[in-house]
Formats: sequence, structure tokens, C-alpha cells
Amino acid sequence: MGRTSTARERLIDATGELMRSRSYSSLGVAEICAKAEVKKGSFYHFFESKQALTIEAINAYWEAERGCWTAELAATGPALDRLRRLLDTMAQLQRRMKETSGTVDGCLLGNLTLELSTQEPAVRARLEEVFDEQIALVVGTLNDAADEGTIPRERATATTARAVVAHLEGLVMFAKVKNDPAVLDELWPHTLLLLGAADHPPDARTPHSQPTAQLD
Amino acid sequence: MGRTSTARERLIDATGELMRSRSYSSLGVAEICAKAEVKKGSFYHFFESKQALTIEAINAYWEAERGCWTAELAATGPALDRLRRLLDTMAQLQRRMKETSGTVDGCLLGNLTLELSTQEPAVRARLEEVFDEQIALVVGTLNDAADEGTIPRERATATTARAVVAHLEGLVMFAKVKNDPAVLDELWPHTLLLLGAADHPPDARTPHSQPTAQLD
Repeated sequence: MGRTSTARERLIDATGELMRSRSYSSLGVAEICAKAEVKKGSFYHFFESKQALTIEAINAYWEAERGCWTAELAATGPALDRLRRLLDTMAQLQRRMKETSGTVDGCLLGNLTLELSTQEPAVRARLEEVFDEQIALVVGTLNDAADEGTIPRERATATTARAVVAHLEGLVMFAKVKNDPAVLDELWPHTLLLLGAADHPPDARTPHSQPTAQLD
Repeated sequence: MGRTSTARERLIDATGELMRSRSYSSLGVAEICAKAEVKKGSFYHFFESKQALTIEAINAYWEAERGCWTAELAATGPALDRLRRLLDTMAQLQRRMKETSGTVDGCLLGNLTLELSTQEPAVRARLEEVFDEQIALVVGTLNDAADEGTIPRERATATTARAVVAHLEGLVMFAKVKNDPAVLDELWPHTLLLLGAADHPPDARTPHSQPTAQLD
């Protein structure tokens, strides 16, 4: 009875877990049901398709990750410190995966984006929304950083925020191909460059007044 | 006879073409053989597995792309102009795909990295080698740029080159999730930031002597 009532959640959890290290196409409904300990016959009682279940798995993944994104970015302290903590947390997730499973599994959102964008329009549309939310969260923090004078005002844009997230996803790809989370140690110094923050040390409160201390 | 002698090449070509927009796992040997117009029975005469064929498809893809990378990066002219032309060419590939097929298919190397790194060790190892080659090619050009004084010497490193390629792969991911190659219009200005070149306009030949013209 208790198990039946949680069957939907178990299917979503099993999908998220399996798809982190395996592709959508390599997974069948039977395998997902077996992992979730749900009878295959009842799968279509909960979901009309594997695609529909995948969108729910994306939602569950992002709901958990969004909690982390908003908590780190809305914390107290200078904006760049908050952004750094978020990126550190993302890197830490990959390190922990390597420690527990032996592999850097990467980001479920990135994995599904490259596998399914050309194949499953509904999945692509949901992934686009999630990435747009990430970018909006980062833009808010970049605006704070510009207010604090630690980045130039012209870098507090959605375009720059997208570059920051793109660089994160790209380095996660390299961590995955090298199966080495140490690749992500480069995340922060390069993010500072993308933000034009190298000339704006965090203790500077007057925008654009510093010499090019780190480059000169 | 002629067709038989090119069967191996046709299998490799068909695989590269199919895997650009579809995942490895979604493709069966039968479908690849059908596209290549090769009898399924003779597949294993040429390749011991789909994995082995995939590695050959990666090799063929990179052989063609490497020609483009070396041609652009070894051309005459300032190093940053050469790097820019390479990145423009990469963006142009995605634009052309969108025009011809209606979808931004992304990069075969990135697609396979996220799908297979945790599943197929031999494919992962080959992809790692290819990305290492890309990084080495970019490092050579960054060294030229440092010699020309258009980027700071400390940015002419493999670490920076990896950030440039990671940012490219990340933006290609965004172009794919948005099915819009215009995302790649941001590629060059952000690459300049990663290179610390914003303070080093291409016509400056004396390193580190410029004021922070573009940031101030």
C-alpha cells in the first residue's frame, strides 16, 4: 500500500539515477521499472511515455538543484563570493560522484541536452526553460556584483551569465571525458575572466577605478 | 565490386552522419547498414562491434575537422585573427546544419563524450585524445599571440586553451538546446575575455602596456 503510493516517485527517482550515467536511449521502461520495483504493467498508469517520465525526472533533478542554486546565490556576503560558492558546489557534486561511483557522470541536464535536443521536442523545450532559469539566477547575482563594483556594469547581462553557465557545462564535459573532477579546479579563475572581474578585486568598492593589477 | 570495396568507408560515413543528430544507443547495426547500403551480414567482416565502428567514425570526423583547425590556425596573419577564424568556422558549421536539416546538431565529439564516457572506455579514451589535440593546437596559437603581445604571456597555457574549447562546447550545447545558432555570435567576445585580451587590442605590439580601455 505504502509502496504503491510512492510508485510514481520511485519511477522518477530511478530514472534520474539511471540517466545520470546512462543515456535515455539505452534505457527501457522494463529496466526503469525493475530498478524502481514497480510492475511494468502499472508504468503507463503513471506516465504516458518514457519521454513524459524523463521530463518529470528533469523537474525532480532541477527542483533539488535549484534549491542549491537559490540558497547559495541568495546567501549573505559579496555577490562574487556567492557565485563562487555555487560553482564550488557544482564541482563538489562531480567530485563526490567520482568518489562514490568511480565515474564523473556529468550534469543530467547537459547529458540530455546533447542526446535529445534534436529528437524529443518536449524534452528540449523543458531543458531550455531550466537553463533560462539558471541564467536568470546568475544575472541577479551579476547585478549585485555590479552594484558592489566588483564587476563592470556591462558584464551584468544574460549574455555573460550564459557564458558562465556554458563554460561550467563545457568544463564538466572535460571532467567527464578525462574522468577527473580536478578539471573543475579551473572553473573560478576563468569565470572571473569572463566577468571582467580580474581588474575588480572583491575588496574594491569603486567600480572601474583599479589598475589592471592581475594582468600587468 | 566498386560498392563492395567502399563498404567500410560507407559504414563509417553513415555512422558519422546518423550519430550527429542521433545517439549511439538509439542506433542499431541494422539501421547503419541500411543507410550505408551494406548487407548486415558483412558488417562484422569490417568491424568487430558498433563500438569499434564508432571509434572509426570519430577518427573520420576529426580527420576532416583537424584539416580545418590546422588550416585556420596555421594561416598567415595575427594569431588572434587566426583563432577567431577557426571559431567562426565552427559556428558556421552549426549555422549550415540548421539551414540544411532544420536542427542544430552540435558537435559529434561533445555529443558522444556526454553519452558514452561512463559506458564505453575505448570511446572515452579516443575522445580524450582528440580533445587533447585540439587543446595543443590552440596552445600553439596562444603562444604566437603572446609573442605578438596581444594576450598576456600567462594566458598562453593548456589550461586557458581548455577553457576556450570548453566554452565553445558549452555554447554549442546552448545553440542546440535553443536550436538557434545565433547563440554562437557570443563566442568571440567571451573568448577574448578568457584570453585576457580585452586589454590587448590586436594592433598593440607591446605587451601589458595598454590601459583597460574596453573595461573602463
